[in-house]
Amino acid sequence: MSNSSSSSRAYRRLDKDQAAVLLVDHQAGLLSLVRDIQPDPFTNNVLAVADIAKYFKLPTVLTTSFEDGPNGPLMPELKKTLPDAAFIPRPGQINAWDNEDFVKAVKATERKQLIIAGVVTEVCVAFPALSALAEDFEVFVVTDASGTFNEVTRDAAWNRMSEAGAQLMTWFGLACELHRDWRNDVEGLGTLFANHIPDYRNLMTSYSATKAPK
Amino acid sequence: MSNSSSSSRAYRRLDKDQAAVLLVDHQAGLLSLVRDIQPDPFTNNVLAVADIAKYFKLPTVLTTSFEDGPNGPLMPELKKTLPDAAFIPRPGQINAWDNEDFVKAVKATERKQLIIAGVVTEVCVAFPALSALAEDFEVFVVTDASGTFNEVTRDAAWNRMSEAGAQLMTWFGLACELHRDWRNDVEGLGTLFANHIPDYRNLMTSYSATKAPK
Amino acid sequence: MSNSSSSSRAYRRLDKDQAAVLLVDHQAGLLSLVRDIQPDPFTNNVLAVADIAKYFKLPTVLTTSFEDGPNGPLMPELKKTLPDAAFIPRPGQINAWDNEDFVKAVKATERKQLIIAGVVTEVCVAFPALSALAEDFEVFVVTDASGTFNEVTRDAAWNRMSEAGAQLMTWFGLACELHRDWRNDVEGLGTLFANHIPDYRNLMTSYSATKAPK
Amino acid sequence: MSNSSSSSRAYRRLDKDQAAVLLVDHQAGLLSLVRDIQPDPFTNNVLAVADIAKYFKLPTVLTTSFEDGPNGPLMPELKKTLPDAAFIPRPGQINAWDNEDFVKAVKATERKQLIIAGVVTEVCVAFPALSALAEDFEVFVVTDASGTFNEVTRDAAWNRMSEAGAQLMTWFGLACELHRDWRNDVEGLGTLFANHIPDYRNLMTSYSATKAPK
Amino acid sequence: MSNSSSSSRAYRRLDKDQAAVLLVDHQAGLLSLVRDIQPDPFTNNVLAVADIAKYFKLPTVLTTSFEDGPNGPLMPELKKTLPDAAFIPRPGQINAWDNEDFVKAVKATERKQLIIAGVVTEVCVAFPALSALAEDFEVFVVTDASGTFNEVTRDAAWNRMSEAGAQLMTWFGLACELHRDWRNDVEGLGTLFANHIPDYRNLMTSYSATKAPK
Amino acid sequence: MSNSSSSSRAYRRLDKDQAAVLLVDHQAGLLSLVRDIQPDPFTNNVLAVADIAKYFKLPTVLTTSFEDGPNGPLMPELKKTLPDAAFIPRPGQINAWDNEDFVKAVKATERKQLIIAGVVTEVCVAFPALSALAEDFEVFVVTDASGTFNEVTRDAAWNRMSEAGAQLMTWFGLACELHRDWRNDVEGLGTLFANHIPDYRNLMTSYSATKAPK
Amino acid sequence: MSNSSSSSRAYRRLDKDQAAVLLVDHQAGLLSLVRDIQPDPFTNNVLAVADIAKYFKLPTVLTTSFEDGPNGPLMPELKKTLPDAAFIPRPGQINAWDNEDFVKAVKATERKQLIIAGVVTEVCVAFPALSALAEDFEVFVVTDASGTFNEVTRDAAWNRMSEAGAQLMTWFGLACELHRDWRNDVEGLGTLFANHIPDYRNLMTSYSATKAPK
Amino acid sequence: MSNSSSSSRAYRRLDKDQAAVLLVDHQAGLLSLVRDIQPDPFTNNVLAVADIAKYFKLPTVLTTSFEDGPNGPLMPELKKTLPDAAFIPRPGQINAWDNEDFVKAVKATERKQLIIAGVVTEVCVAFPALSALAEDFEVFVVTDASGTFNEVTRDAAWNRMSEAGAQLMTWFGLACELHRDWRNDVEGLGTLFANHIPDYRNLMTSYSATKAPK
Repeated sequence: MSNSSSSSRAYRRLDKDQAAVLLVDHQAGLLSLVRDIQPDPFTNNVLAVADIAKYFKLPTVLTTSFEDGPNGPLMPELKKTLPDAAFIPRPGQINAWDNEDFVKAVKATERKQLIIAGVVTEVCVAFPALSALAEDFEVFVVTDASGTFNEVTRDAAWNRMSEAGAQLMTWFGLACELHRDWRNDVEGLGTLFANHIPDYRNLMTSYSATKAPK
Repeated sequence: MSNSSSSSRAYRRLDKDQAAVLLVDHQAGLLSLVRDIQPDPFTNNVLAVADIAKYFKLPTVLTTSFEDGPNGPLMPELKKTLPDAAFIPRPGQINAWDNEDFVKAVKATERKQLIIAGVVTEVCVAFPALSALAEDFEVFVVTDASGTFNEVTRDAAWNRMSEAGAQLMTWFGLACELHRDWRNDVEGLGTLFANHIPDYRNLMTSYSATKAPK
Repeated sequence: MSNSSSSSRAYRRLDKDQAAVLLVDHQAGLLSLVRDIQPDPFTNNVLAVADIAKYFKLPTVLTTSFEDGPNGPLMPELKKTLPDAAFIPRPGQINAWDNEDFVKAVKATERKQLIIAGVVTEVCVAFPALSALAEDFEVFVVTDASGTFNEVTRDAAWNRMSEAGAQLMTWFGLACELHRDWRNDVEGLGTLFANHIPDYRNLMTSYSATKAPK
Repeated sequence: MSNSSSSSRAYRRLDKDQAAVLLVDHQAGLLSLVRDIQPDPFTNNVLAVADIAKYFKLPTVLTTSFEDGPNGPLMPELKKTLPDAAFIPRPGQINAWDNEDFVKAVKATERKQLIIAGVVTEVCVAFPALSALAEDFEVFVVTDASGTFNEVTRDAAWNRMSEAGAQLMTWFGLACELHRDWRNDVEGLGTLFANHIPDYRNLMTSYSATKAPK
Repeated sequence: MSNSSSSSRAYRRLDKDQAAVLLVDHQAGLLSLVRDIQPDPFTNNVLAVADIAKYFKLPTVLTTSFEDGPNGPLMPELKKTLPDAAFIPRPGQINAWDNEDFVKAVKATERKQLIIAGVVTEVCVAFPALSALAEDFEVFVVTDASGTFNEVTRDAAWNRMSEAGAQLMTWFGLACELHRDWRNDVEGLGTLFANHIPDYRNLMTSYSATKAPK
Repeated sequence: MSNSSSSSRAYRRLDKDQAAVLLVDHQAGLLSLVRDIQPDPFTNNVLAVADIAKYFKLPTVLTTSFEDGPNGPLMPELKKTLPDAAFIPRPGQINAWDNEDFVKAVKATERKQLIIAGVVTEVCVAFPALSALAEDFEVFVVTDASGTFNEVTRDAAWNRMSEAGAQLMTWFGLACELHRDWRNDVEGLGTLFANHIPDYRNLMTSYSATKAPK
Repeated sequence: MSNSSSSSRAYRRLDKDQAAVLLVDHQAGLLSLVRDIQPDPFTNNVLAVADIAKYFKLPTVLTTSFEDGPNGPLMPELKKTLPDAAFIPRPGQINAWDNEDFVKAVKATERKQLIIAGVVTEVCVAFPALSALAEDFEVFVVTDASGTFNEVTRDAAWNRMSEAGAQLMTWFGLACELHRDWRNDVEGLGTLFANHIPDYRNLMTSYSATKAPK
Repeated sequence: MSNSSSSSRAYRRLDKDQAAVLLVDHQAGLLSLVRDIQPDPFTNNVLAVADIAKYFKLPTVLTTSFEDGPNGPLMPELKKTLPDAAFIPRPGQINAWDNEDFVKAVKATERKQLIIAGVVTEVCVAFPALSALAEDFEVFVVTDASGTFNEVTRDAAWNRMSEAGAQLMTWFGLACELHRDWRNDVEGLGTLFANHIPDYRNLMTSYSATKAPK
């Protein structure tokens, strides 16, 4: 491992002007396959990524596979939160990157940093992630907004993507790395956290109470 | 165990005309002590109980301990969902049942079935549960809307309450036992479930899609 | 606990001439809610109970709730394995015992021992179990063919049923207690085990190989 | 639970002059089914019970089911440690208590306290335990020398036996309750512990070293 | 279960004028056997019980088994915190209740409620607990200040004690049930909690900061 | 780590015209050693790989070690599903790659992508994987169809193989990467999934029901 | 992986004359977010790092984010243990390295080895770690004194930092690598261990007892 | 990761003529610190490595740290099994490689492959492993014969060693890679496995029984 080479140590850092979000196959039927994260936190994590995309105005591509069949329709909240996102229902390609319209939509964003989440991790996330890396995109996987059958499957998928050069992140790290400085908008980031982190909401509730006039 | 006695086998069944809800010390500070359930599902479970109380119009008593100190204020959603609930801030009694106003509020409901949830389980739930049992109330503990430090603490608390005659339940069982028959209000119960069970919401999303005109 | 009383120590033992099987709400949609057992073993356990019912010719009642809605249809294998079972689709009653046809079907079996499994444990299993106990049936819950949201829910449901006098069993214990003696049919029981216990199948494969002529 | 009755509180205490040991179906094939305890500690626990039987000279009954088939032969160490134990290979009865020779062997010990361990817990242990309780024996289950398919199966089996009046123990508690006082034989009990508890062996190694002349 | 009998529902509540504390065999060597709780929280829990005994001025009996051998000496903090506690080093009895001096020391407290913790749970706690119950003491086991080899051992020990009428508690519940009302001494109880609950200490730190003059 | 080098980012993608399957030592005796995955899902995963090999007509090599001894015979389903697979019973070589016939059979497939699964992971999978990598094959390990003693063993084996350049996959990712596009055969892939993923089968059952004429 | 290159195999070893400690955002509010380690051991680990910094006289930088808001003040013990540490309260930068004063304080230490711990791992630790690596510092992450929301988050954060060249350590390894030889100060290191490792304290208690004159 | 470079794919394979074994600090006191593996399997794994060293006649170096203090003496079985091993009690160096006599003993073996196990993993194993790698030895860590405080500590230690070029193995893989071919000595390897793998012993017991004349 050539850790000593300076190139490997470059901090490939998310930049809100360089990043786009790809949400792949968060469909009502497929969600029932996700068993490596509990349903409550998983749903919360996916919605947090959507809120991040909206908050930072990141260009976003939504895609689904076979919505009319057992895979079911996209989680309705995603389109509601991101009405301007490109939406590419794929007629059959399992790897979204094999779909020309999807790749076109991605490239239309003119961003080189791709934030990817999806269901299931080893397929709907890993395949486009590996394809994008091969075309020299920087890839950031939102691990906790990506779900799969069990922990064995997840660990294998993470390993494959990491070895190929993807960076493993979580939605909270994403939000923080994009925001850079609380002073850019304390209110906005605080609201995002309060809406998606019960413990943080509790801190804010307690804090507000002590600050309230009696 | 005298299981053969018919009295022990009587089905002590929740009845929406006999039941009241007691929510004890779900305060912003105390919630940070809860580590036997993850924050996302725990918050969801507590809010589900509040929605149940509202939906079935169950008389409800909210109580807190030392709101002005580190324990922090009540989760704001509870008062918002249940604006008519009695609210008893206790000046110091750890067992809510040691507070006269609380007991008065409970007895004012004229209900003999008490549904109790709180933080932390072995104290804020167990103490009033044991006191209520000693006064011949029927006690139903909402285990998944009650939280504590860890699983050892929880298991010990459950054992103590169960041995004293409390029935251990969860919010979903509560809702189902109170509702009795879907035909009483399909829409209402379905909405309650969709709002608090991501897997159920997914089922409904998929089902609706197949029923929608194309 | 009056363990010293001889009555409590009576061995309430399953008898294939006294027992009936009730399978409650093993529906395709509801199965996606089950997260306290992994899907592979859970499906296997449910099918094992069906095979037991068939093998021991136990009268069986199948029931569902709202098959046309998001709960989805009964697992198709159940009707295929048990074509003669009574089938009671319930129009709305959550507790199957609140449905007259269901109770009639149960009583028509003229059995006093009821083997119950279902989805979800704290509702579809616990409610009819408690109702049946109140009418002096002996109740045997097949814990591993009954599933629910998580382990907290399961533990609470088991506690409530056990305290009310139900006996907690698993499908393997069921088969063994009903069969009594391997000599009644070595081949039959062995096949049942080989079909549902991979480890047992392996033992048989190895054993057969050593016995085969070389 | 009538805990207040003095009879329930009587300490039913193991007495080395009142106790017999029953080891049921610890056979090489069946052991591969045990997955609720890891193989290393499980084997150790079973051998510890055999050493206890030998050390306290407890009359012992060994039994097996179908040794010639896939269930395989008895763990060879058991007969080696306990050459004088009764051995009852059962021709087909699943519940050892249904085998007349087994019951005769048990009754020939003239002991009223039965220590039972076996594979698998919910069948080979639970069935004879329930039968023995029904005939007014005191039953002590060695939980950690009894194994089964998984934790769900184990928990259900423990619940059934406990509710029927069996006492749940482990091999270490067994040894201590039978021995009563270290002064009866420090060397003997210490050796038993050192042979079966690595942590205790380490304590003895360190202790001996500090006491050794330098 | 005769839950319907009022006697079973009586709230057997800890009273600081009725309770004594028995700490059994918390010795440096034996502590290395404890693996059902991590070392940091376990040590903390034991010291919390000692602080409770001191704070509520509960008469306390300390006892050890073979301090000169591999079991090792008593945790030094216990005698330091409780210099006036009776101390009974046992020459050999495994069940502390078999030691006359120990029983004399217990009875000299003139208390009928015994709070017991020790190492290991199924022996050093369970044996004296069962003996005390047989002499009509009320027994409260501090589960989280009692440790043993693993969770199987713990669960079996809890079951045996609970079935015999012991109440399972934890140190936090103990402190709260003894204290009754914060107003009896806010400072004292708050300090106890801050010293033994990191999360509570954090709450107090944050709270104090908001109250401090800037 | 020279992630920045484009070569490392090349997507080494499974191609059904380039891949062969090697199934190593899935023997009835050795399967009893597998404890890092439960028996039901593990058996299912192995059979899924066999079905994939058949469905995609991938050349396959089966091999065993000492079938006549305690390791036992190959799982009978494998030869039944793959009657045309090469079968190489090894007389003694632990690393299948040390057996000339095995290597010949592999090379006869004229494929450069090797999909390997086996029992136990750190030996029967890792050794031939490392040998094949050293001869410049691309190696894809089917992690969930490979089993071993425990999770420590598994994690060490995965690390060794991954560091040497193997790609960690699971059977579902395998099927999807080989299939590329649902439109190649919706029916076929759907059947494969329904047969090996209970949750997917449920989705299909529910979907079919909504599509059926009423 | 070019493991064969000698450069990658160089032992980048902590040296007490080359290392500085950075403790990032161990604030009372943020600590309530930490759920991947239990509170007792986590608090202990953080305090152990502070004691190490003091013991080895390592230059230390403390920093916080928004102390006046819900994040809360720094754990008071840190400043008490390390009164001479630089303290940089950040007005808004999430990545401490984006704060000029922080970087200045780090560079003022004139050390090239940075030991970093903080809350939460994927942000407050990972961001400055990646920034420092990009400026050619050697980075050592104290994994067990860094906490975050859950294990998924932790694993992703570890992966990202490790892939970028950070070394993952724990406080115990840190102390040992810095100390090099017990003979440098047996008493000092022993005290450090006894204060933070209950098991080690027990060993010392037992050892001292055997050495004490009787 | 330059996986494409052929050098990284070279199979660095254990060779019994090239390998030496280093067992570091398996001392009675330190063993009580090990909590990432249960005591029964951990002890078994360490003894298995000693048996492997003996069986393959691998030159072995034993070393200890402060045997006279609380760390305690070496596990007595190690010297008994390996009477000819070099034994280097270190006067103070924490990293065994810092002790000249130890390095001399290692180099005297004239082996370039070092198999290392010890307690605790992140110090007694990792430090000499990193030192040996820096001197161009090939290092094979026996992960399951190396123990430490908890899984966080273990995972960090594995990561550090793996990133530096060590290969992670387990004792079973070790034995198999060294043995190469069962035909070299079926009896010997079989005995080794039977003595250390209960499941394998069971397979052999069952197999022998079927082969025995009746």
